[in-house]
Amino acid sequence: MAAPVTDTQDTQVPDTVRTEIDGTVARVVLTAARRRNPLSITTMRRVTAALREVSTAEGVRVIVVASEGPAFSAGHDLSEMVDRSLDEEREVFAVCTEMMRAVHDVPQPVIAAVQGMAIAAGCQLVATCDLAIAADHAVFGTPGVKIGLFCSTPMVAVSRAIGRKRAMQLLLTGETIDAATAVEWGLVNAAVPADELDAAVTELARKVADASSVTLRIGKEAFYRQIDLSEDDAYAEMSEVMATNAMTCDAQEGMSAFLAKRPPVWQHR
Amino acid sequence: MAAPVTDTQDTQVPDTVRTEIDGTVARVVLTAARRRNPLSITTMRRVTAALREVSTAEGVRVIVVASEGPAFSAGHDLSEMVDRSLDEEREVFAVCTEMMRAVHDVPQPVIAAVQGMAIAAGCQLVATCDLAIAADHAVFGTPGVKIGLFCSTPMVAVSRAIGRKRAMQLLLTGETIDAATAVEWGLVNAAVPADELDAAVTELARKVADASSVTLRIGKEAFYRQIDLSEDDAYAEMSEVMATNAMTCDAQEGMSAFLAKRPPVWQHR
Amino acid sequence: MAAPVTDTQDTQVPDTVRTEIDGTVARVVLTAARRRNPLSITTMRRVTAALREVSTAEGVRVIVVASEGPAFSAGHDLSEMVDRSLDEEREVFAVCTEMMRAVHDVPQPVIAAVQGMAIAAGCQLVATCDLAIAADHAVFGTPGVKIGLFCSTPMVAVSRAIGRKRAMQLLLTGETIDAATAVEWGLVNAAVPADELDAAVTELARKVADASSVTLRIGKEAFYRQIDLSEDDAYAEMSEVMATNAMTCDAQEGMSAFLAKRPPVWQHR
Repeated sequence: MAAPVTDTQDTQVPDTVRTEIDGTVARVVLTAARRRNPLSITTMRRVTAALREVSTAEGVRVIVVASEGPAFSAGHDLSEMVDRSLDEEREVFAVCTEMMRAVHDVPQPVIAAVQGMAIAAGCQLVATCDLAIAADHAVFGTPGVKIGLFCSTPMVAVSRAIGRKRAMQLLLTGETIDAATAVEWGLVNAAVPADELDAAVTELARKVADASSVTLRIGKEAFYRQIDLSEDDAYAEMSEVMATNAMTCDAQEGMSAFLAKRPPVWQHR
Repeated sequence: MAAPVTDTQDTQVPDTVRTEIDGTVARVVLTAARRRNPLSITTMRRVTAALREVSTAEGVRVIVVASEGPAFSAGHDLSEMVDRSLDEEREVFAVCTEMMRAVHDVPQPVIAAVQGMAIAAGCQLVATCDLAIAADHAVFGTPGVKIGLFCSTPMVAVSRAIGRKRAMQLLLTGETIDAATAVEWGLVNAAVPADELDAAVTELARKVADASSVTLRIGKEAFYRQIDLSEDDAYAEMSEVMATNAMTCDAQEGMSAFLAKRPPVWQHR
Repeated sequence: MAAPVTDTQDTQVPDTVRTEIDGTVARVVLTAARRRNPLSITTMRRVTAALREVSTAEGVRVIVVASEGPAFSAGHDLSEMVDRSLDEEREVFAVCTEMMRAVHDVPQPVIAAVQGMAIAAGCQLVATCDLAIAADHAVFGTPGVKIGLFCSTPMVAVSRAIGRKRAMQLLLTGETIDAATAVEWGLVNAAVPADELDAAVTELARKVADASSVTLRIGKEAFYRQIDLSEDDAYAEMSEVMATNAMTCDAQEGMSAFLAKRPPVWQHR
């Protein structure tokens, strides 16, 4: 939930999202630091566009979603949701869902770098990213219940990440959990001291970026395709995915290199 | 599994379930303490009726399911399941499933206050409640395998709460876990010293009851609607839920109050 | 991923899988210790056949899957997957999926005894077993990404065991986790010192084998039938399973024995 501060610069929305590409790692950065990075319709559209844009850039193999300022994101921009028509409210959640889908749809793994509070749709964004590392003072929550607006779309991602009882606890009480608890519950992969967050994210990104881009693309797409299927259906699809993956030149190179005890040389960098 | 003690009072079933309403919090209490609160057909029907009854009472926003005596519940009343016809056995599980469904169907969040052992259908009831707090000496298990009757209906709730390997451990060994393990596995939300259980449950109930009743109703219903859907289907449904939720007067009030930095005043207390 | 060592004995494949039956407990043991127990097509077919064979042996109520040597299994035999046709690659994963299905299909609970590294399809096998105990120096991982071959079939079992973020961590980084982490994530049930592994597995097997074989059969089959269903559908099926289970002689005996406070005598040992 965004702070009620009015921000002229933000109203003209010139600068709420920035992208950077550094070799194999792209970054999509929320920059409305002073307003705690509200996920306004404009900002969400920009994040979606930024994800798609950097995903097609030459050589990008990992995408980091990060934020400036003390908060990762305080959630939707409530000022956009008061005194609106049903169609206007629908637009907020359609645009939000499209952003979450873009996180899953881009072929590169997406890592959330959570330097501060991740609340409501901000928490949903963390839950949706493929991987996440948090600063150890970050907090997480879905407190919509406190403003009469249950976090029903965030709970789609959050309940699938942390399970029923814990999701209900966040949803029904509106309370936040700290980063250590978020690690324990599987909402994020690790928590580190704030001044080590960048290094930890960079190290994780580089580790992931060592892989062949075609392998990452095949694997990530497959993950979300199988996760909601019955186990039998999942095996039927994944067996075919893995057999065709094995025929790719990078798999043939990787297996040959492994058997020859030498490092692989990917064709798809 | 209920102790084999015959209890004349219970046979006449005058008093196995009691309800109390204290402001916004209703309590449904199992009172066959001496028999370890067996979930007989009569008792389960009474719990179902009690849940429905208190859920329609003026001003109730949270329901606590609690028990008297040393055990939360030892499970089904086995004396009702020996030398019966298949239709009679079916009735036990139909009535049990209806009770579990009632826990999910009442619009108020349901909190289990687990003051002692929660076994078999008793463990299922804890797993089914939206939230649960246990006394730290409580134990949990699904030991039907030890009496030749695998806990197949309890495992529906338990496997969805704690995952596969851990559910299989409880189901196949019949062993119990302590409250700390139940917290770690996500079966309950917290464990507290026995003499602090009432206070902890009351505090949690009050925290939940601070919310607008219409918000809680929308959110709880939505949670169980989305949890078994594919992620795409869940987002489609939840986006509509959240957009219509945003149009309610309590959401409009909540957002406006938040933006104005004042406490909200709910229309739906 | 199997080490590239050529092993004449293994090439003639005389001895990669051994079975033992000791009373109620059968063991299916991988014996290509020096090659780190690669899951070659031949070995996987043998494991599948061995599981089916011991499952029909008189009196077997639990099956242990174990390995000789320092590794539980390093995964598929990569030498079988280089320079092959798509149909040949497909065969690998079809045979692998059939082995995993056999673990679920045999009526007895299957316990993995993980004495060393369980990698890729080896990790999948551990995730697929009903229960698992690991030596505390064992490690687990799905590092296919490092050889250009994403662990898409292992992730079916692994993501269902440990959840999304953690599965993605293993899949995208290729890193391994230690046994303590595997316990914390629910991939295995317990970790014990290496020299206590056999005793711990035997104790667990005996505990499970105390049950009626018909009860175990009913319960295990039911578990996998319900796990992918919606909660409502799961209850509909499990209510019927449990009602018919209650009519079996072993359930009637078990309940009667419990009510009479005497040990049960199973008809289906």
